[in-house]
Amino acid sequence: MTENRYDVLGVGNAIVDVLARVDDAFVEAHGLAKDAMLLIDEERAEALYAAFPPGEEISGGSAANTLAGIASLGARGAYIGKVAKDQLGDVFAHDLRAAGVHYDTAPLEGGPATARCLIAVPPDARRAMNTFLGASALIADTDIDEELVKASTVTFLEGYLFDRPEAKTAFVRAAEIAQANDRRVALTLSDIFCVERHRDSFRQLVKNHIDVLFANEAELKSLYEVDSFEEALAAVRAETRVAAVTRSEKGAVVVSGDFEVAVPAGDVTSVEDTTGAGDLFAAGFLAAYARNMDLETCGKLGVIAASEIISHIGARPQVELKALAASHGIELAAV
Amino acid sequence: MTENRYDVLGVGNAIVDVLARVDDAFVEAHGLAKDAMLLIDEERAEALYAAFPPGEEISGGSAANTLAGIASLGARGAYIGKVAKDQLGDVFAHDLRAAGVHYDTAPLEGGPATARCLIAVPPDARRAMNTFLGASALIADTDIDEELVKASTVTFLEGYLFDRPEAKTAFVRAAEIAQANDRRVALTLSDIFCVERHRDSFRQLVKNHIDVLFANEAELKSLYEVDSFEEALAAVRAETRVAAVTRSEKGAVVVSGDFEVAVPAGDVTSVEDTTGAGDLFAAGFLAAYARNMDLETCGKLGVIAASEIISHIGARPQVELKALAASHGIELAAV
Repeated sequence: MTENRYDVLGVGNAIVDVLARVDDAFVEAHGLAKDAMLLIDEERAEALYAAFPPGEEISGGSAANTLAGIASLGARGAYIGKVAKDQLGDVFAHDLRAAGVHYDTAPLEGGPATARCLIAVPPDARRAMNTFLGASALIADTDIDEELVKASTVTFLEGYLFDRPEAKTAFVRAAEIAQANDRRVALTLSDIFCVERHRDSFRQLVKNHIDVLFANEAELKSLYEVDSFEEALAAVRAETRVAAVTRSEKGAVVVSGDFEVAVPAGDVTSVEDTTGAGDLFAAGFLAAYARNMDLETCGKLGVIAASEIISHIGARPQVELKALAASHGIELAAV
Repeated sequence: MTENRYDVLGVGNAIVDVLARVDDAFVEAHGLAKDAMLLIDEERAEALYAAFPPGEEISGGSAANTLAGIASLGARGAYIGKVAKDQLGDVFAHDLRAAGVHYDTAPLEGGPATARCLIAVPPDARRAMNTFLGASALIADTDIDEELVKASTVTFLEGYLFDRPEAKTAFVRAAEIAQANDRRVALTLSDIFCVERHRDSFRQLVKNHIDVLFANEAELKSLYEVDSFEEALAAVRAETRVAAVTRSEKGAVVVSGDFEVAVPAGDVTSVEDTTGAGDLFAAGFLAAYARNMDLETCGKLGVIAASEIISHIGARPQVELKALAASHGIELAAV
């Protein structure tokens, strides 16, 4: 068996975020959707950017944010995702490596530019994300480094990858390699619209390949097309080993077979920007999970990491999460 | 006489900032200089960036920051500066236009990339700036749009432009057009090292072309090679119409002939990042000055704008400065 060199390997859309504060009139005028991610084409991306207020560029991408969190927690992470050979691609690669994440996917040459997500942050902090997938969607199954998957305790996949057929193939290949090598596979449903676009595929995937499922309450209800949270939990218990469901200010619920534990939300004085809350919950959860810590601790570490992220603009940690976790009495178990 | 369409026209190095929080060990290990700007070549920029922590990209450039502030205050601004035709150049142009500043300098094709400033922000908030000038230094005197200079009440020049001969020529041309058309010319000395590099040129320029000089205490003392603040003030009184001198936590002093007024520093609960403090002081001062407000009010508006900037990471305003000024009882005089 390959040596276990990474706690978590993330596979996702490699994206640079363009963040700007807007008012609610802007959200309405441009038909943006709060708390959600809309896919836009290059033409729409250019038109929306032209209307956008001054912004700041910060590396993003759901699974990449999770991996930056994993590294900040002191766990060992790797990432697979596709940028173009351009300035924003360089920025993405730099930021991830500088965060301490192993990243060596070959950049795309001669194709579309590095993916951008135009994120409008309104006064209520409920961000509206608008993604031009660019090079990120052209990740191919040849980009899935088999040795990397074998060397990782958990392979973590973002649902957003399902939005392009090429990426979906890469996604399934990663899951199959992991399973064939007795590694675990985690998935985040990513977004309610993403679930609606790919419900049947997700249901199959969850049932056949996924050990740990991340979702928020609305995504889980949509996945199983049920109206109550209880029904959704009952459905997911039957189909995955572990499900970690976030519920905003109600905290999170973790279920596994008959086991169930609720974790309260963190103390956040001022919510500035919800971008990355789910990504960082997954980071805390998976860092602990990969070290075989109990599920309640996994959930608590998820909440701690998510609470840091929503206290500022941007979806990458601004403090060392390892120290923050220690201040809450949580230290990762030794490898 | 040309219609007066802009309050302030800025001419400067068009730069995108890469900001990252560092510890003091990083500053020392990489030979960085706090509170100062070091010029670096492309090779050094690449090596330093490789060592840099994860960052965020925000449009910068001293005079461009000032103009973003001018627009945020509700005054009318324009800018001349050179980016390359690349992604970071697009970001720079977008952010400035989205801030409400007129900007149409043609981007450079086939030359070096858009300028970058690697800004390390240590725990004490005293940033260390490291600039690769790239395309910004290749501003030519043909980039100085004569009509724009004629149409602007004040033309504001940043001392950093003196670091390259091409830019210096453009700089002097802008000052000459302004003077020939009975417009005013303002200059910021930019940085103590910049003063040391160009002391003689600056002395000539201040004496012959400058109506309003911006400097901090150390820069002014270095310009006149004197040891005391009083001697420096006496020297500058004799050579410019107005000098506005910033003194960090001691606030600012404005002198004009026999007139002198001290303005106390603003109330800042937590200084996060001093990047842009001088740029935004100039913004507040010049917005009021271009509207013929009294010099004490000019100084006060400068302090208000600077206080907002140092309360967060990045050198562009995060709130509408016009509203902030109004909350301090200052509204710009009508045009």
